[in-house]
Amino acid sequence: MSHLRLVLCQLDTVVGDVTGNAARIVDALRRAEDDGADVVAFPELAITGYPPEDLLLKPSFVAENLAALERVAGASRQCLAVVGFVDVTGGEDIGDAVAHAAGAGVVAREAAVRGAPRRLRNAVALCVGGDVLGVYHKRRLPNYGVFDEERWFAPGSADFELYRVAGALVGVSICEDAWFPGGPVCQQGRGGAALVVNVNASPYSMGRSADRLAVVRARVKESGCAVAYVNQVGGQDELVFDGGSFVVDAAGDVVAAAPAFAEDTLVVDLPLPPPPGEPRLAVVPVSTGPRAQEARPGPPRPPGLDEDSEVYEALVLGTRDYLHKNGFTDAVIGLSGGIDSSLVATVAADALGAEHVHGLAMPSRYSSAGSVTDATALAQHLGIELSTVPIEAAHRALGELLTPVVGAPPSGLTDENLQSRIRGVLLMAVSNARGWMVLTTGNKSELATGYSTLYGDSAGGFAVIKDVPKTLVYRLCRLRNQRAGYAVIPESVLTKAPSAELRPDQRDDESLPPYDVLDPLLEALVVNDRSIADVVRGGRDPQVVARVAALVDQAEYKRRQSPPGVRITAKAFGKDRRMPITNRYRDPAPDPASSSGAHRA
Amino acid sequence: MSHLRLVLCQLDTVVGDVTGNAARIVDALRRAEDDGADVVAFPELAITGYPPEDLLLKPSFVAENLAALERVAGASRQCLAVVGFVDVTGGEDIGDAVAHAAGAGVVAREAAVRGAPRRLRNAVALCVGGDVLGVYHKRRLPNYGVFDEERWFAPGSADFELYRVAGALVGVSICEDAWFPGGPVCQQGRGGAALVVNVNASPYSMGRSADRLAVVRARVKESGCAVAYVNQVGGQDELVFDGGSFVVDAAGDVVAAAPAFAEDTLVVDLPLPPPPGEPRLAVVPVSTGPRAQEARPGPPRPPGLDEDSEVYEALVLGTRDYLHKNGFTDAVIGLSGGIDSSLVATVAADALGAEHVHGLAMPSRYSSAGSVTDATALAQHLGIELSTVPIEAAHRALGELLTPVVGAPPSGLTDENLQSRIRGVLLMAVSNARGWMVLTTGNKSELATGYSTLYGDSAGGFAVIKDVPKTLVYRLCRLRNQRAGYAVIPESVLTKAPSAELRPDQRDDESLPPYDVLDPLLEALVVNDRSIADVVRGGRDPQVVARVAALVDQAEYKRRQSPPGVRITAKAFGKDRRMPITNRYRDPAPDPASSSGAHRA
Repeated sequence: MSHLRLVLCQLDTVVGDVTGNAARIVDALRRAEDDGADVVAFPELAITGYPPEDLLLKPSFVAENLAALERVAGASRQCLAVVGFVDVTGGEDIGDAVAHAAGAGVVAREAAVRGAPRRLRNAVALCVGGDVLGVYHKRRLPNYGVFDEERWFAPGSADFELYRVAGALVGVSICEDAWFPGGPVCQQGRGGAALVVNVNASPYSMGRSADRLAVVRARVKESGCAVAYVNQVGGQDELVFDGGSFVVDAAGDVVAAAPAFAEDTLVVDLPLPPPPGEPRLAVVPVSTGPRAQEARPGPPRPPGLDEDSEVYEALVLGTRDYLHKNGFTDAVIGLSGGIDSSLVATVAADALGAEHVHGLAMPSRYSSAGSVTDATALAQHLGIELSTVPIEAAHRALGELLTPVVGAPPSGLTDENLQSRIRGVLLMAVSNARGWMVLTTGNKSELATGYSTLYGDSAGGFAVIKDVPKTLVYRLCRLRNQRAGYAVIPESVLTKAPSAELRPDQRDDESLPPYDVLDPLLEALVVNDRSIADVVRGGRDPQVVARVAALVDQAEYKRRQSPPGVRITAKAFGKDRRMPITNRYRDPAPDPASSSGAHRA
Repeated sequence: MSHLRLVLCQLDTVVGDVTGNAARIVDALRRAEDDGADVVAFPELAITGYPPEDLLLKPSFVAENLAALERVAGASRQCLAVVGFVDVTGGEDIGDAVAHAAGAGVVAREAAVRGAPRRLRNAVALCVGGDVLGVYHKRRLPNYGVFDEERWFAPGSADFELYRVAGALVGVSICEDAWFPGGPVCQQGRGGAALVVNVNASPYSMGRSADRLAVVRARVKESGCAVAYVNQVGGQDELVFDGGSFVVDAAGDVVAAAPAFAEDTLVVDLPLPPPPGEPRLAVVPVSTGPRAQEARPGPPRPPGLDEDSEVYEALVLGTRDYLHKNGFTDAVIGLSGGIDSSLVATVAADALGAEHVHGLAMPSRYSSAGSVTDATALAQHLGIELSTVPIEAAHRALGELLTPVVGAPPSGLTDENLQSRIRGVLLMAVSNARGWMVLTTGNKSELATGYSTLYGDSAGGFAVIKDVPKTLVYRLCRLRNQRAGYAVIPESVLTKAPSAELRPDQRDDESLPPYDVLDPLLEALVVNDRSIADVVRGGRDPQVVARVAALVDQAEYKRRQSPPGVRITAKAFGKDRRMPITNRYRDPAPDPASSSGAHRA
């Protein structure tokens, strides 16, 4: 049986780095050519990085992307390269149109946006022999969740073309195109394609890789063709792309897969049946037989990751890429001896190397002795630097300054927030002096309920675990200790009652329901947008549900000012959830409950 | 000639306040009925407030909106009420569909989002005699700039219907529908409508009211019908809706107009010619003759506002509504004696009343004598409270704490930021203790270039002038002084060289180009997305342009954590401009220039 040597390049591109991305693509393309590849595929929008967002509104950026595509195409030789880029259609030069409109006042400018709408396309170029042989435009544009593709792109609608490579007919599609029964993948498979390449920039969330495989298998089943799924890898602001590219043959079996959370080049010699008859779609000839003489066995399948391990790897990669892609090598973290900061420090050490992580313990008059001893033990285990700065002198000085203004020494929430903000000021000063990025340590349960201090513990450049519910924080710590074979994160950190330690004998469960009650409620209310009545019907305490829902609503203003962090769930606080701050909607509770309860503001 | 009594209700709705908005609508409807109205029109999505954003993903919210529409329709009597609401189409009950999908895992959930896509419609109901007589779905959904309507809504496509009211044929359309030549307004006008009602939630930006009038006149010209444009008014997070509803008759003349930036009920008796022949669209009968026996003269036209006055009113209304709608009565502002904080305090006093505005002067060792005397004079002129807290003790205490950690007493940017952050901590403590919202004082020029301190001067709940370039800050101060007839904002504030006063003899123009050079560059680079090369071709210094462009790129992370503030330009830093933080794109300068230059971080 004939075979086709397929190379999937699971690259970690950088948004905006058109020159660098193109160089990475050319380099990988050359290696694939040298290895006898018939088809080499790169991720969605590989030239610009994904998502380029409003860089797409800059005509100079789009033009640079087109020039880079020409360089990539120029480097193509015998194999067919599938290269993601931004295409421009519509006849006019976009630069002129926009520049003209910009000078012509608002009506004309908006008319240009509306009237010549979205002339950009999310595209792949089919490059061979130094040229662009064809272009495909994404047909299904996601415009929900974290995606805004209809903001920039028009959907493709041209007739499909198949490419005859190594004697087999190959189709192409982009990401969302694969998620629709009867959609572009199916149409090309039924139209005669033996293989459809699907290029992706599909961000990680828990359970996502199983979803992708199920969807691709469904396409294979309905269309009868093999599908090659290539994904990008790496962190981009709140998103982390997990890679995990794979190939499913026409029988529905996974014949090759790349690891998750790492760059990879997946080479697979795919046996292809002879075409069953005349294709019903236009065919562009590329090559008639395989370039590689003999089929090689595929690479071993990477070991699967359980869900908690996936999350941990996502946090590590997301953190590393955010710092490195933004020019930072080192991070500084406030270590309280609590579980959140312990996990963040551990992730940071795994992401950046222990020598690039700097702990700062900042005990106040209310800190327990354990807060410093636990932080010290953790730092020793991780091999990271730890400095200690008691904040008492600043706490006292600021308290004295405030007394005449507020009429009494700061107390209650004012004094709790004051301590937290002093720590924020110290961390940011160290950041400024040393050039280290501050990593914040708040988890999703806190962010959801507003149990944090704006400009205090929420101050920093990157919020590593902002999408990790507290119960999962515990699981991740245990996982990491298991991996290490000992309690890297000291056992006492895992067992003591969670506390902000901002007043004597404070405990989180004075202000919030226990986390094993809270987290499932947040999943229902926030991730799944269920109503209070619906959740209560599921057997929850109406007062507790109503109170949690009210806390979530009231904390929107704080979340809006929080730094980005790694998205690991199907709905993170970020681009996923666009709630108004000014919002008087209060989902009616079946049994109206008070929304009282002091929490830091 | 026959006439039609048309009532445009320019309401200040509150997003999410379904019950309150419906009550406001019913109240206005009753008054219009009592006044003999034939047609009464409310703004776009009046029942939910605009924009409801991801509240639309909550089935309980959408259901409550439908129930509220029933109540409004139930209150309708003889006149035709045009009521904005969210419609649900597609057969299934959305609650069940989404709830079912939510329980069924990610693939099913996403399939529900994708496969039964966007079953919500941005709609108006035509209510009369206690019932909903018809429904219109918005056809053109804006999905650019601050708008994301394709995230939630499907466009309308049903056949047009005209309503025979007072013997005349009336059509309806929603906002964006009016912006397309040959679009829904034109089609209804050519189909026989004598009047097309266009309901809007059109946010303010400079020059927008002239755009709207030009667009409506163009529709009138091409279709031959009168157009009634009703807009909402009021602040909603970063948006401020300016009202300014108006009616253009078939000859293209404005026959009535409501004031900008205030609630209003515009009543106009519109003479209507007899229908020219048989309508080409379906007609729904409502009433055959006018309810009001005699036509009344229209109200006097409100005086026009010049551009600076418009901006000032937008700031006042946006600030008042943000505080009041979020449950705040009072604001606290750090007063430095500089022009930015002086303008913000003045706007706040006009928005909230002087007795609700509290100034805090926080001089450091580097503050000029003028900083306190100018702040004092301003507070006296405005009649606002002023407290003074020298920050020296906290500055010294924190400096001493930091010395062992960073190896030396804080200096340079670290020390500058430290002072700014101490002020942020003090303001937030006063906010916590008193329940006053902190208003931040940074302007657009600073926000664009990153010339501000994260968690320092940028800390607060609302950023009043974040979209106001520095040169416009000066104009607004002069305008306000002119209005008062004396220098409310002391002349010395307007004439001294801008300085952050964070080191001896500091001046803004050591770090930034002069503002009259900077602001036009920012307009070109940010608002109009022009390339460096393009701006340089316009005669600018390549080094300066490249440096400013680099500053803008580097400051994205700071802007992401800034509070919302009033949008007054065609492109604000907010929902308007969605740039990645991790972004290696550097627009090539014709003459590569260094991007050095200390600025606060």
